[in-house]
Amino acid sequence: MVKIREDERLDYLLAEDLRIIQSPNVFSFSLDAVLLARFVWVPIQKGKIVDLCSGNGVIPLFLSARTKGTITGVEIQERLYDMAVRSIEYNQLSDRLHMVHGDLKDAPKQLGFEKYDVVTCNPPYFPTPSKEEINMNEHLAIARHEILCTLEDAIRSASQLVKQGGKVAFVHRPGRLIDIIELMRKYRLEPKRIQFVYPKAGKEANTLLVEAIKDGSPDLKILEPLTVYDENNEYTPVIKEMLYGSK
Amino acid sequence: MVKIREDERLDYLLAEDLRIIQSPNVFSFSLDAVLLARFVWVPIQKGKIVDLCSGNGVIPLFLSARTKGTITGVEIQERLYDMAVRSIEYNQLSDRLHMVHGDLKDAPKQLGFEKYDVVTCNPPYFPTPSKEEINMNEHLAIARHEILCTLEDAIRSASQLVKQGGKVAFVHRPGRLIDIIELMRKYRLEPKRIQFVYPKAGKEANTLLVEAIKDGSPDLKILEPLTVYDENNEYTPVIKEMLYGSK
Repeated sequence: MVKIREDERLDYLLAEDLRIIQSPNVFSFSLDAVLLARFVWVPIQKGKIVDLCSGNGVIPLFLSARTKGTITGVEIQERLYDMAVRSIEYNQLSDRLHMVHGDLKDAPKQLGFEKYDVVTCNPPYFPTPSKEEINMNEHLAIARHEILCTLEDAIRSASQLVKQGGKVAFVHRPGRLIDIIELMRKYRLEPKRIQFVYPKAGKEANTLLVEAIKDGSPDLKILEPLTVYDENNEYTPVIKEMLYGSK
Repeated sequence: MVKIREDERLDYLLAEDLRIIQSPNVFSFSLDAVLLARFVWVPIQKGKIVDLCSGNGVIPLFLSARTKGTITGVEIQERLYDMAVRSIEYNQLSDRLHMVHGDLKDAPKQLGFEKYDVVTCNPPYFPTPSKEEINMNEHLAIARHEILCTLEDAIRSASQLVKQGGKVAFVHRPGRLIDIIELMRKYRLEPKRIQFVYPKAGKEANTLLVEAIKDGSPDLKILEPLTVYDENNEYTPVIKEMLYGSK
């Protein structure tokens, strides 16, 4: 029997037919996690995947529907780690999904260097916030701001974890494209596939998906654009399918 | 009276109500020139613009409809330079448009360092070709391949020509995105606006437009995607407007 705390909800992941424990006060997953989990290449039959900045384990849960391999989530906030552990238990996925409570900077030492086929990461997007923001809600502040890890920390750890020829996928804001490219190359990750996500037709991109290969050769592709909302502010068919499993 | 050679045509630039001398054997402008001329920021009332790798002067001609400033085209191939000179004369634009026959690597010394508001460039896209390709058609080979100038040469010269705070815009293939970003930063050009062009819905991008500011602060925007053809393989309205001046 999995315990659900008072401020928590047991939400549906409809397309995957799974449930996830969330709390609006602490952490709820965003569309960016959905986009990253669908964008990244994964081995279907077997393989080892790590998800950094795993939060309430949403990306491991999503990926469990796409691969029979094992998935390890790393999360530094104990409260979110605990939500993820209970969600994995609730969905009876404990044989393939594992959570580690710890700092991603220590993950390679703990989990092993260059042992993983794929590393995913939906890191904090924003530079360090003000004291007031942190005091207002520490959980949300840590998930959204580069308080406990920088983009460079996340990319360095991802590179240390992944095998030569393995894949590393990040979701971030387009404004950080140049930093991401420069940091990935610094840590031997060659960007190979980029997809931009636009909130609506005619608007600037607000989300960036990037997949790199460790020690890959330079050959970058820009995939077709993804648009989230149509003219009526409803999800486009491609997004509906990701979220609900049908158009 | 402007002379048109036997293998040349006097084509229309419909949207701009101008004419241009072209030759299928030597050089005809591509959609990429149209895209770059429309993408780049230009001062409206006055200012100084340089176009590198100017070919038959298509970008200066296009830009002459968007700015009252002066535009200097630099072209290394004498045959193309000569076509550009005659097109400028034909359109009676010799008061504002000038061509320089020379190597873009010498352009800063010839035209002055940090004197220009805007530099545009539609450089050769492909690495050095085989001897056979060069022998088949030297004019086209030089326009398309990095024979007489590399991407780094073009970006270095552009940076030397442009003022602090001035703009440099390139069109290229998306596979060179990372090289372009790294080279621009190397020469103090900070990429600020990128737009990807897709041949059709659902396809990967095949063209990249990028505008940088000399000594600008990092703040990159990814503009809305541009699609060239619709499902019936006809130009989309946005492309029709660029080419014909109406939808």
